[in-house]
Amino acid sequence: MANPSQYATEHHDQFLQELISFLKIPSVSTQPERKNDVRKAAEWLRERCIQVGMSRVELFETEGHPIVYAEWLGAGADKPTVLVYGHYDVQPAQKDDGWDTDDPFVPEIRDGNIIARGATDDKGQLFLHLKAFEAFMKTTGAFPVNIKILLEGEEEDSSRNLPAFLKQHRELLDADLALISDTAMFNANIPAIPYGLRGLLICELIVEGPKNDLHSGMYGGAVANPIHVLSRILASMHDDYGRVTVEGFYDDVRELSSDERAQLARIPYGEEELRKETGVSASWGDTQYTIVERMGARPTIDMTSFKGGLLGDGIKNIIPQKAWGHLTCRLVPYQNPHKIFELLQKHIERHSPPSVKVTLKKYSADEAVLIDPRVAPMQKAVDAFKAVYREEPLFTLVGGSIPIVKWLVDDFNIPVVLMGFGLPDDNLHGPNEKFSIEQFRLGIQTLIKYYESLAE
Amino acid sequence: MANPSQYATEHHDQFLQELISFLKIPSVSTQPERKNDVRKAAEWLRERCIQVGMSRVELFETEGHPIVYAEWLGAGADKPTVLVYGHYDVQPAQKDDGWDTDDPFVPEIRDGNIIARGATDDKGQLFLHLKAFEAFMKTTGAFPVNIKILLEGEEEDSSRNLPAFLKQHRELLDADLALISDTAMFNANIPAIPYGLRGLLICELIVEGPKNDLHSGMYGGAVANPIHVLSRILASMHDDYGRVTVEGFYDDVRELSSDERAQLARIPYGEEELRKETGVSASWGDTQYTIVERMGARPTIDMTSFKGGLLGDGIKNIIPQKAWGHLTCRLVPYQNPHKIFELLQKHIERHSPPSVKVTLKKYSADEAVLIDPRVAPMQKAVDAFKAVYREEPLFTLVGGSIPIVKWLVDDFNIPVVLMGFGLPDDNLHGPNEKFSIEQFRLGIQTLIKYYESLAE
Repeated sequence: MANPSQYATEHHDQFLQELISFLKIPSVSTQPERKNDVRKAAEWLRERCIQVGMSRVELFETEGHPIVYAEWLGAGADKPTVLVYGHYDVQPAQKDDGWDTDDPFVPEIRDGNIIARGATDDKGQLFLHLKAFEAFMKTTGAFPVNIKILLEGEEEDSSRNLPAFLKQHRELLDADLALISDTAMFNANIPAIPYGLRGLLICELIVEGPKNDLHSGMYGGAVANPIHVLSRILASMHDDYGRVTVEGFYDDVRELSSDERAQLARIPYGEEELRKETGVSASWGDTQYTIVERMGARPTIDMTSFKGGLLGDGIKNIIPQKAWGHLTCRLVPYQNPHKIFELLQKHIERHSPPSVKVTLKKYSADEAVLIDPRVAPMQKAVDAFKAVYREEPLFTLVGGSIPIVKWLVDDFNIPVVLMGFGLPDDNLHGPNEKFSIEQFRLGIQTLIKYYESLAE
Repeated sequence: MANPSQYATEHHDQFLQELISFLKIPSVSTQPERKNDVRKAAEWLRERCIQVGMSRVELFETEGHPIVYAEWLGAGADKPTVLVYGHYDVQPAQKDDGWDTDDPFVPEIRDGNIIARGATDDKGQLFLHLKAFEAFMKTTGAFPVNIKILLEGEEEDSSRNLPAFLKQHRELLDADLALISDTAMFNANIPAIPYGLRGLLICELIVEGPKNDLHSGMYGGAVANPIHVLSRILASMHDDYGRVTVEGFYDDVRELSSDERAQLARIPYGEEELRKETGVSASWGDTQYTIVERMGARPTIDMTSFKGGLLGDGIKNIIPQKAWGHLTCRLVPYQNPHKIFELLQKHIERHSPPSVKVTLKKYSADEAVLIDPRVAPMQKAVDAFKAVYREEPLFTLVGGSIPIVKWLVDDFNIPVVLMGFGLPDDNLHGPNEKFSIEQFRLGIQTLIKYYESLAE
């Protein structure tokens, strides 16, 4: 009988077909009209967990989208228990955003990639664990460690109902370490293990002016335009050098030690790589920090949407009743998102003229997290990557956030290992999101190695 | 037999029903999907013109929406010829904009008003002329003057194809004066005759950053956010006091004479009236000028739409590929819109960082216009208003623009009389646009008087 690694190789095409059917379900958690699709994705996962041989599979209802839980504890009490986390919900996507496939939810295979919303974030990556598990079960009849799989459907909506679930099911979820595949490698040859994630504060900023849209010819010059007021508020938040000017914003920021800066400086990523990846003609931001530092270790303010006036086609010559959008901060360790929210409120108040009503609403607030890279499960991850990729992984700071990591580190007090197989140009959250089929293959191989080593 | 005035009174309800059926046609000229509706409105008007007894009725095709032309020249060569202009296209409208009727295109009668998109701008107002004409024809069998009616379907789209039509049909449109009902009275008791209209420059301003939407966590802090860049550009265009800071913007502005300022100061409109009309808590703008002056005699810059990031519901944590919207200027006499466009371009260039691509596109450019209030047709308008409203009309400067006025004044060199019957709270371009039914009635009576007086 083949070993797990051979089994995975032999069933590669079949695995890919399964992933394609998973990616076809448009499980966009933030769009109310997709509610049924999100559930469909959860049910699809439940079926798969049963098929691969998990011994207990359950769908837990939440106030939002359901949580899929599966476990196999047959390795025995002397083997460690791994809590695997993933999310089956995805970012919004539509053809118009710039996809060059027919439909973000009709996967296409092209140039060695599978292109679809969720391919890498996180459907493709969570699927690796199910397939690694299947490979063991089908060949050896057992898994080397005890495994608990927790798959949520609200990660792209700030994991709103996860904290309550974690609290309520503390014992069920008890484990020796947590393992998450929802990040990227440095490039196709160099794996990366993140040891820090930025936090995320999401707010809505609303400027309301007249009681209804006004004819811009009749009232222009006498009534404050909410679009202009919102623009002025936004413009007041950065100086000409890209530094945040919100009073107190940097007060609690952890300054990088010279050792850490030296280590981050070894990451071969700079102006040229950024330009190539994003298509911008130049980087932007606080030049007192390197690009790697700016992307992972420095806090930011970004308005991620801005809406005012006619949003469809055509022209409407109005001073709109309101302008609004989402104001977000990426935060670093020791910054408290609730304190930052208050600083933002004060700043906005100071920069709002009396003739409009300005409101800042807190939508979600997650702290940044730091993980100790010296613990054994982290070092075993280094070894697993090295065995498959034949290259030393880099320890990196990641700019995005995965809310559960903070809660696992702080409340569960267990090591969290981030073994991601995405690539920097996978375009998660953007059009043409992809997952490299080679990474899909190598990811399963790496996880097989890692699970084996955890049993030792 | 009844006289025209009595006829209009007796047929009031029937006239209103006809207007309702006209308002039901959603003739939004700037929305491509409404193309057929715009044509339907033109055809509806053609039928009406035939029914009221015009002797020649024609639909002229243009590169955009059709022009309705109708004439009756039976008054004879010794009577003046009046060119009546109106537009049958309307601004975009949808229930969600804040309408408290079921549908902007299903008129409702409430509190003495007819509520529907286009009720006052300009379907209701152009219809007054057809009904005044009908009243004469049905009672006296003739109209007191020769009349040519020109109804276009692109006024809300900058009258794009009208200049070519005017040039091509110069002789057909020959007249002694032009008469337009597309403005408002000062209030329900005090008529107003505008002697100036602001010009309008419409541009599109586009800021393009990365080649596609980026994950805001991964790239935030290292890539310029097009929403922020567009906001900074916008914010740079006004100082803290509402004055435009675009270099050279005020260079050619006609300063008001002390006489004119004194006359405008007699208009009983200020802070309180503005607040009541618009619902703002305070006015805004350059306090060196009164509110009346700011609204009619001073130039402005207003961004009428701003779009960036996810425009639908939900949250998308991205640095968007682009941010864009419409940048418009309301211009005053002697400001050249093409020169202003160049000044805007220079200003924007100076305020754009190198890491993004910023584009300003000229969409349309119309100069402001001034009309001499001393000529006979203007004075006869004063008398007609006085006869019906028993109040001296105010001569006013209007902030909005009606592109044809400039062309008639400059190229046709004929007096243009603006006799409008809208009210300031009619909410044209906004939700719940209305036309007072009493104004509908009095408008027809005033026009009957005016047409009679023109024959004298």
